[in-house]
Amino acid sequence: MNAKDSRFLSRLDATAKEIEDLLDRLLAPAPADGEIARPARLVEAMRYASLGGGKRFRPFLVVECAALFDVPRQRALMAGAALECVHCYSLVHDDLPAMDDDALRRGQPTAHKKFDEATAILAGDGLLTFAFDILSRRETHPDAGVRSELVSALARAAGLGGMAGGQMLDLAAEGRFAGNGPQQLGESEVRTLQAMKTGALLRFACAAGGILGSASGPRRQALEHYGSAVGQAFQIADDLLDLEGDPALVGKQTGKDAGAGKATMVGVLGGAGAKERLKELVAEAEQALAPFGTAAAVLIEGARFVADRHA
Amino acid sequence: MNAKDSRFLSRLDATAKEIEDLLDRLLAPAPADGEIARPARLVEAMRYASLGGGKRFRPFLVVECAALFDVPRQRALMAGAALECVHCYSLVHDDLPAMDDDALRRGQPTAHKKFDEATAILAGDGLLTFAFDILSRRETHPDAGVRSELVSALARAAGLGGMAGGQMLDLAAEGRFAGNGPQQLGESEVRTLQAMKTGALLRFACAAGGILGSASGPRRQALEHYGSAVGQAFQIADDLLDLEGDPALVGKQTGKDAGAGKATMVGVLGGAGAKERLKELVAEAEQALAPFGTAAAVLIEGARFVADRHA
Repeated sequence: MNAKDSRFLSRLDATAKEIEDLLDRLLAPAPADGEIARPARLVEAMRYASLGGGKRFRPFLVVECAALFDVPRQRALMAGAALECVHCYSLVHDDLPAMDDDALRRGQPTAHKKFDEATAILAGDGLLTFAFDILSRRETHPDAGVRSELVSALARAAGLGGMAGGQMLDLAAEGRFAGNGPQQLGESEVRTLQAMKTGALLRFACAAGGILGSASGPRRQALEHYGSAVGQAFQIADDLLDLEGDPALVGKQTGKDAGAGKATMVGVLGGAGAKERLKELVAEAEQALAPFGTAAAVLIEGARFVADRHA
Repeated sequence: MNAKDSRFLSRLDATAKEIEDLLDRLLAPAPADGEIARPARLVEAMRYASLGGGKRFRPFLVVECAALFDVPRQRALMAGAALECVHCYSLVHDDLPAMDDDALRRGQPTAHKKFDEATAILAGDGLLTFAFDILSRRETHPDAGVRSELVSALARAAGLGGMAGGQMLDLAAEGRFAGNGPQQLGESEVRTLQAMKTGALLRFACAAGGILGSASGPRRQALEHYGSAVGQAFQIADDLLDLEGDPALVGKQTGKDAGAGKATMVGVLGGAGAKERLKELVAEAEQALAPFGTAAAVLIEGARFVADRHA
């Protein structure tokens, strides 16, 4: 690992700690204004699902993209915390027995194993709802127009036309519904699925930096282009990890995709083709950020890190 | 039924039709800006869960409370549609096998029976997310400050300190978790549970009218007081229906509460005491709206209707 990598990792780590502290404060047991009470078991499950783990890569993207426009750090952290709530809700619901039926997440029991299914469903619902609570606070941005734009962009990234829709496509591809067997998806169908399931939130992370910074149209497009390339790289690296990774290092069961007939770019392109594609995506991410010059160096290192994490 | 009642019912019916048309348009198969695609199965499940039924009482409250401040009707309908999405998501998730395990809703198969559990979970997630998409649109209100306030109020009403928290308390009271038997809740615990589980959204409905109309503090408090009384009356009437109602008329299984050890005011006060309490709540709702004079007549009729629906 060279000096550049360690600069990226130290910034990633610093943001992760700040997000952890912020979520810890936001998910305190005491109710906020307008809330009646926070039931202990639900708070506990929401904290279990959102604290104490994760690289917080999405909040890192928000913070670093926002920094390109000199956005006060606390605002970017608030938006990053909201996004992390959506990410964590999606993990809790995707792990449910009716979905991917996973018992381990980050090396720990999944929420429905630690608590029970009903509590896990509610904890996911609570985290998703809480994300919009966070985005609507003045602490996120004093300009209500910015807050409303963040809400709109996150809802579209996470909803039926984004992440939730992507999970639906993924389940359908596995042939999970009566009368359907597993489907062999082509490259463009896999791309759409992954652009929705994992890409949409990563693109939102980058877009959010531009929204917080009232960036110009071309700058926002550059950030979204970068986010899109990073999102694709992230997914391919994840799929390579599933194919080749060690469960003890990955922290969850591996080798599931092939068994479940999961639609992946690794399946479409093969292992070597997928690694080639990773290189192209890193180059695309770098090119997208060229207008920002050296200010974007740590984001480019982030893209390389994402692509290399299968190694 | 007298002339006043039929005026209420015709207004309720008119709003229901408008909400139906609006949700039908908003949940069209084509993706909106910023969405990648809307998977057919997920759109179908979200439409199944939100169209073709329901009295739309919550949107009615939004529309009528907003009318007190001369808010353009379309804005109130948008906020009402968002609220209805949250209400419908909560029904889909509450009906799941891991929660209340219901097979019928409004006389039709519940979403997980019609589709499957994974699709029902995603449809609920999609509807919850979509509510915030709707609230963040300019069509809901041209002032972003109003939109952001609506998002904040809805998130707090629906989240861990509101509806989702109330469902958690309800499951806990039934003794659904390892090591706990059913709990006998006292009156104040039942009140808290119901203020969260069903009261919070009904209070939000009334508050939303005031937010849309930039109402003064005292007027907002009056609306919330009315919403709180109506919410309590609504729940007691619902519990009386479960105790005494005919499943063919109610459209779902009845007599479940006593068997499940559900915490209800009927359980705490008895049938006769609950009916007495209903009368007090209607009087409270009327009194809260006194400052609005005759303009609030249809809302007062609504409160009476809610209380009488157990008969």
